[in-house]
Amino acid sequence: MIDAPDVEELNPPQRTLMGPGPSPVHPRVLKAMSTPLVGHLDPSFVEMMDETQELLRYVFQTDNEWTIPVSGTGSAAMEAAIGNLVEPGDTFLAPTNGYFGDRMAAMARRAGGDVVRVGAPWGEPLDPDDVADACEEFHPDVFGFVHAETSTGVKQPDVPALTEAAHDHGALVVADTVTSIGGVELKVDEWDIDAAYAGPQKCLSCPPGASPLTLNDRAMDKVLGREEPARSWYLDLSLLEGYWGDERAYHHTAPITNVYALREALRLVAEEGIEERWARHREMASALKAGVEAMGLGLNPEDDYWLPSLNAVLVPDGVDDGDVIDYVLEQYDLEIAAGLGDLSGDVFRVGCMGHGARPENVTLVVAALADAFDALGADVDAAAGLAATREALR
Amino acid sequence: MIDAPDVEELNPPQRTLMGPGPSPVHPRVLKAMSTPLVGHLDPSFVEMMDETQELLRYVFQTDNEWTIPVSGTGSAAMEAAIGNLVEPGDTFLAPTNGYFGDRMAAMARRAGGDVVRVGAPWGEPLDPDDVADACEEFHPDVFGFVHAETSTGVKQPDVPALTEAAHDHGALVVADTVTSIGGVELKVDEWDIDAAYAGPQKCLSCPPGASPLTLNDRAMDKVLGREEPARSWYLDLSLLEGYWGDERAYHHTAPITNVYALREALRLVAEEGIEERWARHREMASALKAGVEAMGLGLNPEDDYWLPSLNAVLVPDGVDDGDVIDYVLEQYDLEIAAGLGDLSGDVFRVGCMGHGARPENVTLVVAALADAFDALGADVDAAAGLAATREALR
Repeated sequence: MIDAPDVEELNPPQRTLMGPGPSPVHPRVLKAMSTPLVGHLDPSFVEMMDETQELLRYVFQTDNEWTIPVSGTGSAAMEAAIGNLVEPGDTFLAPTNGYFGDRMAAMARRAGGDVVRVGAPWGEPLDPDDVADACEEFHPDVFGFVHAETSTGVKQPDVPALTEAAHDHGALVVADTVTSIGGVELKVDEWDIDAAYAGPQKCLSCPPGASPLTLNDRAMDKVLGREEPARSWYLDLSLLEGYWGDERAYHHTAPITNVYALREALRLVAEEGIEERWARHREMASALKAGVEAMGLGLNPEDDYWLPSLNAVLVPDGVDDGDVIDYVLEQYDLEIAAGLGDLSGDVFRVGCMGHGARPENVTLVVAALADAFDALGADVDAAAGLAATREALR
Repeated sequence: MIDAPDVEELNPPQRTLMGPGPSPVHPRVLKAMSTPLVGHLDPSFVEMMDETQELLRYVFQTDNEWTIPVSGTGSAAMEAAIGNLVEPGDTFLAPTNGYFGDRMAAMARRAGGDVVRVGAPWGEPLDPDDVADACEEFHPDVFGFVHAETSTGVKQPDVPALTEAAHDHGALVVADTVTSIGGVELKVDEWDIDAAYAGPQKCLSCPPGASPLTLNDRAMDKVLGREEPARSWYLDLSLLEGYWGDERAYHHTAPITNVYALREALRLVAEEGIEERWARHREMASALKAGVEAMGLGLNPEDDYWLPSLNAVLVPDGVDDGDVIDYVLEQYDLEIAAGLGDLSGDVFRVGCMGHGARPENVTLVVAALADAFDALGADVDAAAGLAATREALR
């Protein structure tokens, strides 16, 4: 027999989560997580599924019938979208301007697709003209883009121009809305997005484990008309339709508790109002932006495509980004993150998401960064930063 | 703008979950679910990952380094095992004796494998001689079997004879241990199982969302030596190795809260002792079995392969199974389930799992069934059933 290991009671540190996610979870959502379970086919759960789907339609701003939480984290929702929409031999057009465009490309290849790319540097959005040119050249079946790039802090502006360019050439459009949903203006129907996926642990401030996905009829027609089944059984939307559609037939055991939590997190959005919530994110992130700019740092992306939920703050001269991240974690139990890929070492990634988009959290970030820069010897004007944030929050 | 739906506060009914899962969750695990999150790359979380992996090795009774919770429900762990071990063109030998053998076969086909079958009727286990014959005939690369069939209540006896038959013919062995882990004797290393997957929501009494998986070196060598990558990016074990292995590099955001819960559920197993827990399941299910047998019903499978964690109780003459299930749900908030597939209409599926394997729960099931049979006009000796269960529990 193999002996039992001796593991202590769960006692994690109390972090203030201001990185790229997970974001701080609202107490009401934590409480929902501790609710005793009903079965995944219980009549009461079927009702909760309906409610959760209705709430998801609200945050996506869509009437799509096909709006569900996928039983996994955001990457599972991403693979559900791409793995079902891309058939072997299809051409998939993926962006090059961030980490998650590469992930889309990787998943499309796994689905048997041929991947072509449309380019922009990391830290910049796609140009609709480039998308149109790429569509002209490659005739993609599916075009994917990232609405809110968590790796670069860039918001893709003018989404309708992108979807129009793709539709003009007959391509379906998949949007990564992981870091925009519930925090940044997102209008799936009005913008004519065919499929969008998201994560719950960013601006919805819900623990990861059940992830939003929506497809319009055009996209579902393609999924249901596939010549061969999707390559994943677990993520096959034609099978999931049996459970989340009218039939409510068993496919797999849903992550019941994660659905409870998502439902509660979405109720908080509905109570606040989605437009009010977008405005709050913008205001709180503006105070953060004012603070770091007054310190002389600024953000990496230009203002036109600044993403309020994820701020790519430039690392000042004279300090190592890792030292700053470690300092604020040790001194303040505050989580912020390093840059990824092409921006590694050049930026901090500071989230301003959901329940974390509050004056006290933003103030702590600016104060902790100011202290870290001072302690580690960077030449920044800490007092000016704090004053600017305070002023912006008044 | 699409309007916000009006959704009430979360207030599910209080069920006693005695179906095929989820099982009742221990209060300590529910409390763990409501713990505020740390980041998925936080140093404290990395430590919790190590502890969770160590505890998983204990419940699997394995030294396999490659022992992780998969970020999804049990079917995700199943697809992680099969989708990584089966390469296009491989032959996969799947059993026909239950619902989950069919699911294994479906996943192997999605992975590009050719599926061949080894047969036994629903409600019976596999015969090792039949497995040897099938291996002789088909030369499978991978053989899958279900240790504890949730659809039939059958426990596969003499697992070492199965693994030996497969290994003699060069096949790797994958075991479905969803309904055995933590409740029924399971010894991955001693029984020479190459890969095993499980669910947390059965005998571990943990909410679904992070699911146990273990692979030995022989299995991982095959995974890491694949000619083309696994067809799912999300479930690709060669990528997950980066996160759960020594490197701890970002792959996807782990379902942090589900890992908290699984860790706590596994701590409860370690505190009780795995052998003591197996014995408790056997004793509690024996009391249930004594009760239904004294009512003149009995279980579907023969005693030699009775599965204590999932009891396939024969439906008595004169009642409809659905009426009984509805009656106990309405009268007692008690969840039991109907038979599946070939056993549909013939059996009830009554779980005796984890925190549900207690005298009060077993007594409630027998009393509620006796009441339902009486109220619905089945000719059973209710008093004898209750007396037998009471006697067995003393």
